[in-house]
Amino acid sequence: MSNHEPLVVVAMGINTHQEPIAYMHRDCPVCRAEGFSASTRILVSTEDCNLLATLDVVENHTLSPGHIGLSNIALERLGVVEGDIVVVQHAPLVHSLGFVRKKIHGHSLSDEEMDAIMQDISDHRYRDIEIAAFLSVCAGERLNLDEIIGLTRAMVSCGKRIEWSNNPRIFDKHCIGGLPGNRTTPIVVAIASAAGLTIPKSSSRAITSPSGTADTLETLFDVQFGIDGMQRIVRETGACLVWGGAVNLSPADDLMVRIERELDLDGEGQLIASVLSKKIAAGSTHVVIDIPVGETAKVRTLAEADYLSGLFNRVGTACGIQVRCVITDGSRPVGNGIGPVQEAIDILAVLRCEAQAPVELRKRSLELAANLLDLANNTGLEQGRSLAQDILDSGQAWTQFQLIASAQGGLKTLPKPDFSSVMTCTEAGEIRAIDNRRLARLAKLAGAPNDKVAGIRLHANVGSILKAGDPLFTLYSDSPGEMDYALEYYRQNGDMFLIVESG
Amino acid sequence: MSNHEPLVVVAMGINTHQEPIAYMHRDCPVCRAEGFSASTRILVSTEDCNLLATLDVVENHTLSPGHIGLSNIALERLGVVEGDIVVVQHAPLVHSLGFVRKKIHGHSLSDEEMDAIMQDISDHRYRDIEIAAFLSVCAGERLNLDEIIGLTRAMVSCGKRIEWSNNPRIFDKHCIGGLPGNRTTPIVVAIASAAGLTIPKSSSRAITSPSGTADTLETLFDVQFGIDGMQRIVRETGACLVWGGAVNLSPADDLMVRIERELDLDGEGQLIASVLSKKIAAGSTHVVIDIPVGETAKVRTLAEADYLSGLFNRVGTACGIQVRCVITDGSRPVGNGIGPVQEAIDILAVLRCEAQAPVELRKRSLELAANLLDLANNTGLEQGRSLAQDILDSGQAWTQFQLIASAQGGLKTLPKPDFSSVMTCTEAGEIRAIDNRRLARLAKLAGAPNDKVAGIRLHANVGSILKAGDPLFTLYSDSPGEMDYALEYYRQNGDMFLIVESG
Repeated sequence: MSNHEPLVVVAMGINTHQEPIAYMHRDCPVCRAEGFSASTRILVSTEDCNLLATLDVVENHTLSPGHIGLSNIALERLGVVEGDIVVVQHAPLVHSLGFVRKKIHGHSLSDEEMDAIMQDISDHRYRDIEIAAFLSVCAGERLNLDEIIGLTRAMVSCGKRIEWSNNPRIFDKHCIGGLPGNRTTPIVVAIASAAGLTIPKSSSRAITSPSGTADTLETLFDVQFGIDGMQRIVRETGACLVWGGAVNLSPADDLMVRIERELDLDGEGQLIASVLSKKIAAGSTHVVIDIPVGETAKVRTLAEADYLSGLFNRVGTACGIQVRCVITDGSRPVGNGIGPVQEAIDILAVLRCEAQAPVELRKRSLELAANLLDLANNTGLEQGRSLAQDILDSGQAWTQFQLIASAQGGLKTLPKPDFSSVMTCTEAGEIRAIDNRRLARLAKLAGAPNDKVAGIRLHANVGSILKAGDPLFTLYSDSPGEMDYALEYYRQNGDMFLIVESG
Repeated sequence: MSNHEPLVVVAMGINTHQEPIAYMHRDCPVCRAEGFSASTRILVSTEDCNLLATLDVVENHTLSPGHIGLSNIALERLGVVEGDIVVVQHAPLVHSLGFVRKKIHGHSLSDEEMDAIMQDISDHRYRDIEIAAFLSVCAGERLNLDEIIGLTRAMVSCGKRIEWSNNPRIFDKHCIGGLPGNRTTPIVVAIASAAGLTIPKSSSRAITSPSGTADTLETLFDVQFGIDGMQRIVRETGACLVWGGAVNLSPADDLMVRIERELDLDGEGQLIASVLSKKIAAGSTHVVIDIPVGETAKVRTLAEADYLSGLFNRVGTACGIQVRCVITDGSRPVGNGIGPVQEAIDILAVLRCEAQAPVELRKRSLELAANLLDLANNTGLEQGRSLAQDILDSGQAWTQFQLIASAQGGLKTLPKPDFSSVMTCTEAGEIRAIDNRRLARLAKLAGAPNDKVAGIRLHANVGSILKAGDPLFTLYSDSPGEMDYALEYYRQNGDMFLIVESG
C-alpha cells in the first residue's frame, strides 16, 4: 500500500506470549491515515522481514505518535530492537482462514487446505482466537481419517525433518497421557537403547497435564538441544531424551498446543496428528504407543482405545510409519509422584532398582520396552519381556541412562520445594478409586508444571487400606498463593479419593 | 486466597477492546508469590468489585514491582483510576467452561448449561479465545432446536428487559442482512408508526457487513439512548430508531458479536438467538423478519431460507413471540449506496419520494411494511400494501420520520468523504450478476462501517447495459491507506461484476 511512513520501535517489554502485539498512539499519523483501530491486524515490516500483529491502541501519553511499541514476541520475530525503524500497513488477507470457516461450517478439508492452514499457523499469521476456532471445530471426532492424515502430513511439511543416514530403523515410544505419574519413557528408552535399538526420543511439555515428559526430564538434565545436538547424543549413546519443541519439528503444533492448554482441550485428530507428525519428522520408522484406559484417564473405555488404536494404525500406515498401540491400565496413578520433580524421583528409583520404586511404573516400563524389543527383533513378546527385565535388573539400564545424562550435560541435583502440606485420611477405609483428572488438576493448581517442584507424592494408592489419620499424600508448592489455591480445591474435592469402610 | 498484598494501579492507556488485560512486572512480589506467568488468569479486586483479567508480564522497567497496569476496559469495569489500590489472586475456575468443552466434544447443552455460559460471558468471565471456541462449535448447524431456544432465553435472562405497560402489542422488523444497501428499516418503521403501530426499533451495528442499521442511522441522528430515552421517544412518536447495544438488552450477545466479526463468522443458531433475544428483551410481541435469498447473500437457497424461517417460527413460538418471515430477492444490491452515509442518502430519497430514489429499496420497504400492517390488522396483504403505499406517497412517512428524528436530537447534515474514486466499465456489456459478498468486502476495506463516509455508490446494477467507460460505481474513503487497500482488492476482484457482451 501507499503509506510507508517510518515508525520508531519502542520495546514495551511486555510478554504477550505467542501473539505479537503492536502498540500505537491513537493520534499516530499512520494510525489515522490507515484507519487503524483497536484489534486491527497490521503488517509490520523491516527491509528483510514482515510480521502480522494485532494492534492495541494507546490513548494516553506513554507512547508518542511516530513511535510503535512492540511486545517481546513481536520484537523477537521481527528481529528488531528499540530505536529501529519499521513501516506498517494493513495486514493482507490470510486466505487459509477461509478454510477454517469451511471447517466451522461442517465441511471436510482437503490435504491442500490443511497444508495452507498449517503453513499459515507456523508462519504466525493466525491470531489466538483463530487458532482457538480451528482447534475447537477439529475436536470431538470432527476430523475424518483423510483429514487426520492430511493434518499429520501438513504438520510435518511445515517443520524440520531429521535424517538418520546410517540407521534404516529408528524406534520411538509415546504415551498419549492422561495418567498422573505415568513417566515410563526415560526407563523404556534406557532399556531399549541398552539393547542396541536406536531411539532418539523427543518429548513434549505438558498440554493439560501437571507434567510432560520433557518437563520431568528437565529437572534431571538439559533437554534443550537442536538437531545437531540430538544427532551427537544419539551417536554417542544410541538414544537421547530431549524436548521436541527446541528442535522445531512441528512449529504449527507448538503454537496450537498452547491454545489447547489454555482451553483445556484435547482433540483426538489433533492428538494423532500431533504425535505422529513429530515421530515422522524425527525420522522414526517404528513406534510403540501407550494408551492408558480408565474411567478418569484421557481414554475412558476399551472401545474408545480400540478406535484410537485403529486410527493411529491407519494414519501411521498412510504416512509410512509402523505403529503398535499398547492398551494399558489407566484406572490409577502409575508412579507415586505427580509433577516434574516428584516424577523424576520415581524414575531414578526404578532405574536404580530401589526398594521403594513404584511397582506399577516398573511393570509398565518393562511391558512397553518388551513391545519395542519384539517390534525390533520379532522374537515374540515373552522373549522381549525377559530381555527387558534382565537389562533393568542387571543395572545396564541405569548405566545407559547415566550415559545419556552425561551426553546431555550431566545429572542435576533435584530442587526441593519451599512449601509442603501432608493430607491425611479422615476416616478408616480402603481406597477404591482415585479420580485422575481431579488429582491432575490439584497438582496443576499447586503450580505444576511451571513450578518444577510443585506436585504431589502419594502415600497410598487404589487398594490401600488406611486408618484415620494415615497420610494420603503430600502436596508441594513453591508459592504460598498456589498452595492455598490447591488446598482450597482439595477441601472442595476430597472425594477425588473414594475411600470406603473396609469390611 | 492468602495473598492480599495491595498493588497500586497504573492506567496504561491501552485499548485492549473487551478483554481486560493486567500488566505486572516479572519481579512483582505478588507475581512471584502467586506463581503468575504470562497468560495466567487473575482476579483483580477492589473493596466493591472483582474483575477477571489476563496477565501480560512486563519484563523491562516501564512498570515497577508493587504496581499493576490495567488496560482501559479493565479500569472501566473495575471502576478504578491511576493510584487506586487493588489486590490480586488466582482467578477462580469458571465452571461453565466445562459446558463449552462438552459442546466442543459434540454433546448438546441443556437450558441450565446455556444459562451458565451466557451469564459468565455477560459477566466478562470469558477470554476472547474461550468465546471464539464456543461460537465456533455453535456455528454450522451444530445447535439443535432446544439449544437455540435455550440460548435465546439465556441471552434474554442475562440482560435488561423493557416493559411497555400500556401497549399489549409491540411490533418490530428485522433483516438478517447479507445484502448490501438493504436499509429498509427506517422506511418501514416510519410507515408502520405513521399507521399507528407501536414499533420501538433497536438495531445492531454491523457484524460482518459494511454497515448495520445503527451505523447508518447514526449518520442521521443520535441513536445512543437508554431505556428511559427509548420510552420517551416512543411516547412522543409511537416509534424509535436506536442502537440496541446502548440499552444493554443482550450484553452477552454484544460481547460475542465482536468475536464473530473478527472471525468473520455467522452461526445460524447464534443468529436466531441473537435476533429473537433482542426482540424479546425489547418487549416485542410481533416481528416481521426479512430473509434475502441469493447466490451471494447470507442465505443462498430457498431451501435454506425455508429452514431458517421454520427455526425462527419454532423458536419464536417457544419464547412467546409471533414471528413472520418474509423471503425476499437477495440476488442484487437493494439500494445504490453501501456504507453508513451512502445508505442514509438512499433512505432520505425514498422517504422524500425523490425521482432518483432506488426503486428496489422502495418496493421492499413497502412489502415489509405491508406484512407488518397485515400482522397488526389482519386485513390481508393486499390491503396492507395499498395502505403502506398511501402513507409513503402522501408524505406521511417522511413527516413521521422527521418527528422521530426530532425526538432523537434532530436530523444531522451528512458528512462528505475526503477521497473518492470512480470506477468505470472496461468493456461494453450487460451486468448479469454482482457478487454481494465481495462488494461488501470492498466497502469494508474502504473503511466501512468504522469510517461513516467510507463506502460505495453504485451507478449501475444487475440488468444495466453499459458502454466501455461508463461509470460503474464510486468508491469513498476517509483515509488514503484504506482507499489504496480497497482499490488493490478491486483490481484483483473486478469480476465481482459479471459483465457479458450484450447481444
